[in-house]
Amino acid sequence: MIRVVLVEPEGEYNVGFIARLCRNFDVKELYIVRPKCDLEQAKNFSAKGLEYLSKAKIVNNLNEALQGVDVSLSTSSIADSQGDMLRKSVTPEEAAKAFGDRHVALVFGRESVGLTREEIEMTDFLVHIPATPDYPVLNLSHAVGILLYEFWKLRRKETRPKVSQ
Amino acid sequence: MIRVVLVEPEGEYNVGFIARLCRNFDVKELYIVRPKCDLEQAKNFSAKGLEYLSKAKIVNNLNEALQGVDVSLSTSSIADSQGDMLRKSVTPEEAAKAFGDRHVALVFGRESVGLTREEIEMTDFLVHIPATPDYPVLNLSHAVGILLYEFWKLRRKETRPKVSQ
Ligand SMILES: Nc1ncnc2c1ncn2[C@@H]1O[C@H](CSCC[C@H](N)C(=O)O)[C@@H](O)[C@H]1O
Ligand SMILES: Nc1ncnc2c1ncn2[C@@H]1O[C@H](CSCC[C@H](N)C(=O)O)[C@@H](O)[C@H]1O
Ligand SMILES: Nc1ncnc2c1ncn2[C@@H]1O[C@H](CSCC[C@H](N)C(=O)O)[C@@H](O)[C@H]1O
Repeated sequence: MIRVVLVEPEGEYNVGFIARLCRNFDVKELYIVRPKCDLEQAKNFSAKGLEYLSKAKIVNNLNEALQGVDVSLSTSSIADSQGDMLRKSVTPEEAAKAFGDRHVALVFGRESVGLTREEIEMTDFLVHIPATPDYPVLNLSHAVGILLYEFWKLRRKETRPKVSQ
Repeated sequence: MIRVVLVEPEGEYNVGFIARLCRNFDVKELYIVRPKCDLEQAKNFSAKGLEYLSKAKIVNNLNEALQGVDVSLSTSSIADSQGDMLRKSVTPEEAAKAFGDRHVALVFGRESVGLTREEIEMTDFLVHIPATPDYPVLNLSHAVGILLYEFWKLRRKETRPKVSQ
């Protein structure tokens, strides 16, 4: 069971697209920590994910957004190659394999400055989506889409009915 | 080597985001067939992918956009479960494994109506991103992001330097 957590998202198109992605990949919960954009405007981009915006839990801090999950994963466009990171990052694939069957929070940062070190420290693991070292900074909602897709692939394999014959 | 082909894209934010994704995942070529939106506006969403918009090849039909590639893959939110598709669809993973080392065109359709049957027929294979059967229709640029990510993962595995020790 997946909870998507957005920390201070700034772009209404991103929030709207994320609501749509939540529907596409059957996410159970959407939490938004101190939204910095207009959630009404976001509805213009949510297509059939609209209800995720009406039902989103708006909370005051990341701690609240992490209540009740088994494991929390923060995300960053910066991998751990410099060795000066808080924790070694895992790939989306590794994260899905390790935690796909748990109640997991996927935590995404601000378009402008990502997550703070304090926020990353509050989570159990850090996920980095591999991309060109030259410019690995994805747009927020596209990072969300890739994570949800990896988790979906795994759930799909596990639940796909066996064809007997 | 990857060529991204967009057929009649309608949203400038999508085209801008796709330019950014092209940079994130080191795409070589971006072709746009009869753009239906303002490419200048798209630049507001392209971040460091800006140069892909300036260098994009604008062409008049899909046939032109497919010149010179080894293999072409169209994409659709509709899988082949009904048995009435032109061709059986493959997953992004299967496509990347089969064609990741070729010069491949990835062809994406209009936000409103996708690709026509004729356009799908012009390509060699059809790719469907697995998502909830209830609503598998991703937003255009998010579908592009997931495909590029799968192809990138494979290239990364193949080119990652071996650590000896
Ligand atoms: N230990 C760590 N592991 C992974 N990413 C980290 C990290 N420490 C910092 N970062 C990344 O660096 C970003 C900013 S950390 C603070 C630096 C400053 N606010 C700035 O943006 O320049 C975080 O959002 C996170 O993405
Ligand atoms: N390659 C990548 N891997 C994992 N998450 C990524 C990512 N690229 C972007 N994101 C997600 O998208 C959010 C906005 S991008 C933040 C960029 C910001 N300039 C910074 O300094 O961090 C990030 O906080 C993260 O949640
Ligand atoms: N699940 C999925 N798998 C593969 N491509 C998808 C997808 N969801 C969206 N796309 C891509 O995004 C484009 C716009 S979505 C098109 C939706 C349209 N209502 C239709 O009838 O098809 C599609 O043409 C395809 O290129």
